Amino acid sequence: MRSVEISQGLVRLIDQRQIPAREEVLECTTVEQVADAIRSLAVRGAPAIGVSAAGGLALAAYNLRHLPEAEFWAKLEAAAALLRSTRPTAVNLFWAIKKVMDYAAQLKGNSPGEVAHGLLAYAQDLAEQDVTVNKAIAAFGATLIRDGDGVLTHCNTGSLATVDYGTALGIIRYAHEQGKKLHCYVDETRPVLQGARLTAWECLKFGIPATLISDNMAAHMMKLGKIQAVFVGADRITANGDTANKIGTYNVAIIAKEHGIPFYVAAPTSTVDLSLAHGDQIEIEERNPQEVTHVFGTQVAPAGIQVANPAFDVTPHKYITGIVTEKGIAYPPFDVNLKRFVEGG
Amino acid sequence: MRSVEISQGLVRLIDQRQIPAREEVLECTTVEQVADAIRSLAVRGAPAIGVSAAGGLALAAYNLRHLPEAEFWAKLEAAAALLRSTRPTAVNLFWAIKKVMDYAAQLKGNSPGEVAHGLLAYAQDLAEQDVTVNKAIAAFGATLIRDGDGVLTHCNTGSLATVDYGTALGIIRYAHEQGKKLHCYVDETRPVLQGARLTAWECLKFGIPATLISDNMAAHMMKLGKIQAVFVGADRITANGDTANKIGTYNVAIIAKEHGIPFYVAAPTSTVDLSLAHGDQIEIEERNPQEVTHVFGTQVAPAGIQVANPAFDVTPHKYITGIVTEKGIAYPPFDVNLKRFVEGG
Repeated sequence: MRSVEISQGLVRLIDQRQIPAREEVLECTTVEQVADAIRSLAVRGAPAIGVSAAGGLALAAYNLRHLPEAEFWAKLEAAAALLRSTRPTAVNLFWAIKKVMDYAAQLKGNSPGEVAHGLLAYAQDLAEQDVTVNKAIAAFGATLIRDGDGVLTHCNTGSLATVDYGTALGIIRYAHEQGKKLHCYVDETRPVLQGARLTAWECLKFGIPATLISDNMAAHMMKLGKIQAVFVGADRITANGDTANKIGTYNVAIIAKEHGIPFYVAAPTSTVDLSLAHGDQIEIEERNPQEVTHVFGTQVAPAGIQVANPAFDVTPHKYITGIVTEKGIAYPPFDVNLKRFVEGG
Repeated sequence: MRSVEISQGLVRLIDQRQIPAREEVLECTTVEQVADAIRSLAVRGAPAIGVSAAGGLALAAYNLRHLPEAEFWAKLEAAAALLRSTRPTAVNLFWAIKKVMDYAAQLKGNSPGEVAHGLLAYAQDLAEQDVTVNKAIAAFGATLIRDGDGVLTHCNTGSLATVDYGTALGIIRYAHEQGKKLHCYVDETRPVLQGARLTAWECLKFGIPATLISDNMAAHMMKLGKIQAVFVGADRITANGDTANKIGTYNVAIIAKEHGIPFYVAAPTSTVDLSLAHGDQIEIEERNPQEVTHVFGTQVAPAGIQVANPAFDVTPHKYITGIVTEKGIAYPPFDVNLKRFVEGG
C-alpha cells in the first residue's frame, strides 16, 4: 500500500479523509490540488506531506515545461511558496521542498522539459527513500518491544502517514511481523480522530491485535498495567530533542513518565530541525474550530462556544526515553547523540 | 433550572442525551422509565441519578399504592433492586436508594397509600437538600479561585449533573457570579462528550467565559500557563480520598501535578463511601463500545476494531489537593479530615 504515488503529470494520494468509510484515491494533476490535499488533511503525516510536496513540485514543473525559462523558474518558485504555506509545523514539508528546489537549482541551464524530467525522478527517489528509511526505523525500534508487551500509540504514524510502512506504527508492525506477541492500544486522537479512523484501520489490515481507546483512557490503562511502552511519531524535533507532534502527545508523555513507562519518538532524521535550539521556537498550527465542535459534520457542541484547536503540542526532551531514527536509536543527551545521526549524513 | 423534578406519580428529567441540539423533558410515570433514563444517560451525574432514583422509588410506591401490603413491599423492594442495577460506580445512587428504603421501613404499619405519600415528600426533600448542599460546596470552593484565574473542568458537574447548580461547575459559576474574572477551560470529555455538549451549554447559559478543548489539549494549555486550578466532580470517594470520577480525570490529575497546578474534587459528603478503604475496591462500569466507535450515530472507527470503554477511572488521593464538600474543604490526610466531615452529620 502506497499512500503517495508520483508519476509523470500526476500525484496519486489515498484520500485519508474518507477512511475508514471508503478507500478513495485522489488524483492531483496540478500543484494547487496537491496544496489543497495537504491543507485539508486528504494527505497528512509529516513524511507523507513531505513527499507529496516533492511530487507537487515535480507536477508543477511538468505543467510549466512549455513556458519560457524565466517564467518557468518564477512559477516553479511560486509553486514552492504555495506548498510551504499549507501547514506550518511539520518540518518534513520544508525539508522536502528545499531538497527538490536545491536539486532544481543544480539543473539550471537545462530546458524546462529536462528540469521537469529531473524533478520527477528526484521526487520518486525521495518517495522510495522514505520507505527504506521507515523500514530501518522499524527494525531499530522493534528491538525495544518485548514479547507480551502492550504498546500505546497516538495519532497515525503508519503506512498512511508516510509513503509506506510508517514510523512509530511501523515499529509496532515490524515487531508483530517478527512474531512477537503484542497488543497495540490506539489513542483515538481527537479532534481529527487519526487513531480511530486510520490507525485502527491499519491494525485491522495488518492483523495487529489492537484496542481503540479515547485519549483520556490512557492513564487508566497504564495504571492497570496494560502498557509497557509508548511509541509516537514527530512533526518537528529541535536540536535538544524537544518534539512537536500531534496534540495530546505531551499529555501521553507525562502520564507515561508518571507510570515509569518508556516513551519513544520515531522519526526520520529529516524531521530533526537543527536550526531550532528548543521546542518553544516551533510554530504550532491552530486549525478550524469546527474540527472540535463537529464530528463528521454532526454538531456536538453548542453554537457560539469558543474553541481552542492547536494541531500539535511540544513534548520537552526530558520526557523522551529515546528517539528512533533510520540511523539508530538516539538516547539523551539528544543535543549530542541525535545531532550525530543527523549530521552523520 | 431543575434537571430533576419529582411530583405525585411523575419524575420529570431534562433529557441530557438531546442537549445541545434540543431541550426536551422526559416525563417518567413508571420506575422502569426512570431506570431506563439512568441507564441510557438521559439523566447522569452522581447527585442527579441519586435524586432520580429516589424519585423513582416514590413513583413506584405511588403506582403500587392500591396493592395489598405484602405485595406492595415486595414490589417496592424489587423497584429498589431495579434501580440499583442501573449503574455500578456512582455511590450516590445506592446512598439515595438506601435513604429512601430506610425511611420507608420507618413507615411500615401505615397503609401503602400513606407510605407512598411519605416517600414522595422524602424524595422531594432529598432534591431540595441537593440544591442546598451544592450551593454550600460552591461557596466553599469559590474561595479557591482568584481573580484572573483560568480553571479547567472535566465532564459535566453543573446544574444538569445535580438537581440544580452543580458541584465543580457550581464552584466556577459561583466565583463568576461573585464577579471574579475567570476563564473556564472545558474538556470535551470523550466518549460521551459531556463537556462539549453539557458543560459548554451551561457556560453559555450562565455567561461564564469558556473555551472548549479536546481532552488531550489540557497539558498543552497548562504549559502555556492558561490554567491555575482544576475542579472536577466525583462518583465515589473512598475513605482514604481516592476518587472515582469520569474517565480521564486521573489523566488530568497527573498532568496538573506535573505542572504544579492544584487539583480539587468537589462532591457532597453523600459521595463518600467510608465502607471502602481505597479506590481499587471501586467497581468501574464498562459501557457499550459504540460510545467510542460512533459519535451521534456516525461511525468513526472501522467495524471490527476492539474497544475499551471504562466509564470512570480512579484518581489516587496523592494527586488531590483538596476535596470540597458542603461541610468545608477537606485537605490531606483525607482518611482523617474527610471522615470528620462525613461523620460529623
